[in-house]
Amino acid sequence: MSQKPLILVTNDDGINAPGIRFLIDVMKEIGEVVVVAPDSPQSAMGHAITINSTLSLEKIKNTEVPEYACSGTPVDCVKIALAEVLDRRPDLCVSGINHGSNSSINVIYSGTMSAAVEAGIEGIPAVGFSLLDFSWNADFTHTRPYVKKIAEQILAQGIQKGVVLNVNLPKENIKGIKVCRQAKASWEESFDKRLSPHGKEYYWLSGQFVNHDVGEDTDVYALENNYVSIVPVQFDLTAYHAIQPITNWDLKDVD
Amino acid sequence: MSQKPLILVTNDDGINAPGIRFLIDVMKEIGEVVVVAPDSPQSAMGHAITINSTLSLEKIKNTEVPEYACSGTPVDCVKIALAEVLDRRPDLCVSGINHGSNSSINVIYSGTMSAAVEAGIEGIPAVGFSLLDFSWNADFTHTRPYVKKIAEQILAQGIQKGVVLNVNLPKENIKGIKVCRQAKASWEESFDKRLSPHGKEYYWLSGQFVNHDVGEDTDVYALENNYVSIVPVQFDLTAYHAIQPITNWDLKDVD
Repeated sequence: MSQKPLILVTNDDGINAPGIRFLIDVMKEIGEVVVVAPDSPQSAMGHAITINSTLSLEKIKNTEVPEYACSGTPVDCVKIALAEVLDRRPDLCVSGINHGSNSSINVIYSGTMSAAVEAGIEGIPAVGFSLLDFSWNADFTHTRPYVKKIAEQILAQGIQKGVVLNVNLPKENIKGIKVCRQAKASWEESFDKRLSPHGKEYYWLSGQFVNHDVGEDTDVYALENNYVSIVPVQFDLTAYHAIQPITNWDLKDVD
Repeated sequence: MSQKPLILVTNDDGINAPGIRFLIDVMKEIGEVVVVAPDSPQSAMGHAITINSTLSLEKIKNTEVPEYACSGTPVDCVKIALAEVLDRRPDLCVSGINHGSNSSINVIYSGTMSAAVEAGIEGIPAVGFSLLDFSWNADFTHTRPYVKKIAEQILAQGIQKGVVLNVNLPKENIKGIKVCRQAKASWEESFDKRLSPHGKEYYWLSGQFVNHDVGEDTDVYALENNYVSIVPVQFDLTAYHAIQPITNWDLKDVD
């Protein structure tokens, strides 16, 4: 009963990213921490897993808490942590702190959130944290009490089955915390077409985030007003409201 | 008005996979087809996108319909198709036919479905097709009338905004079509640990699919009973039912 909660820490920016170093430091105040994170940046990997190649897992030497670097994606890290590293089920999985926003539709591209979702699929309370600052030198200091509070509340209250939390943190001047829905938004892509020194065309994916949502109950709105946003995220992707309309389609007469 | 519908075809098994060759052949009966697909297998890539490296896009020579091979993920293929290849918005995006099931929780790991979801985010009616046969030499012939019917119905009926379709096809003896919800299931991972000739440990990710769901309205149930399953899938991941309970947490007193 006196055992401290076991907290699995992972991310998608790689085990050496300042965001995960900060998160490890906060989690050490709350529980027993084990880190299993990608050995290199894995941003925008979504829910990718490694099935056509092998994985390596290296224990890092001389660390304060046990740390393992894995060659795979964030989701691979959670899978291998649960199957090969941890000797008991973690009480919490925290992912991040991501360098850059994962609000709105970004949740779907995010390796940070996919790691949390994978833990959720395995029935482990899980949360992904992201800071609205893409810089490698981002300052995380001001987020400490919010990150700690939210992690403590998850441990105290539990999370409903099938749900994980997507937490985004303003860059500065935090006013409080709002529980929100995901804003309806998308990226307007543009591709930067270039010519290699060898005369071959290639592209850089680029784009602009466009919020189509005027609601005041969204994560984007909360963040614009300097609130930490918490969006409960589910991995049952069924659009239940769409089942009935499709049932009325002509799907019987197939030949 | 007499213009044929424009159909974007993509997949995650790569542009040379038998599944996409079959799908192209079916779609040619319905509309004007343009293919933009990965130049190599991209299975289990989830919603990954390429932001830290460049993309190539090669027009394949001497094909019946325009075909482009892209070095990126399935989601990259959809993005570059819309931004750089197509001269008008497609009326439909079809992805697949995947060699292997994408029912239940597999939807979340699936590059096939992520391509369809990406098109859906862009407001394009979209569907991913998967056959319950992992074999490269899988026989798709018996699925033709079902694939054609479903694509035609999407064009005729439209799909609600924010929804794309996840269609799985039995390996043989199809009895009909069911509109379903995603079964609650997960993978029980096991890692196959090996030693390289150089004495270094490495792992293969492996696992067993476990269906925790006894419902008769699920995709897994439909498929087990030889029905084609259609699950409407959404990309607003908000767990609306979980917002209120979390609002009652102690999130005010942060210091």
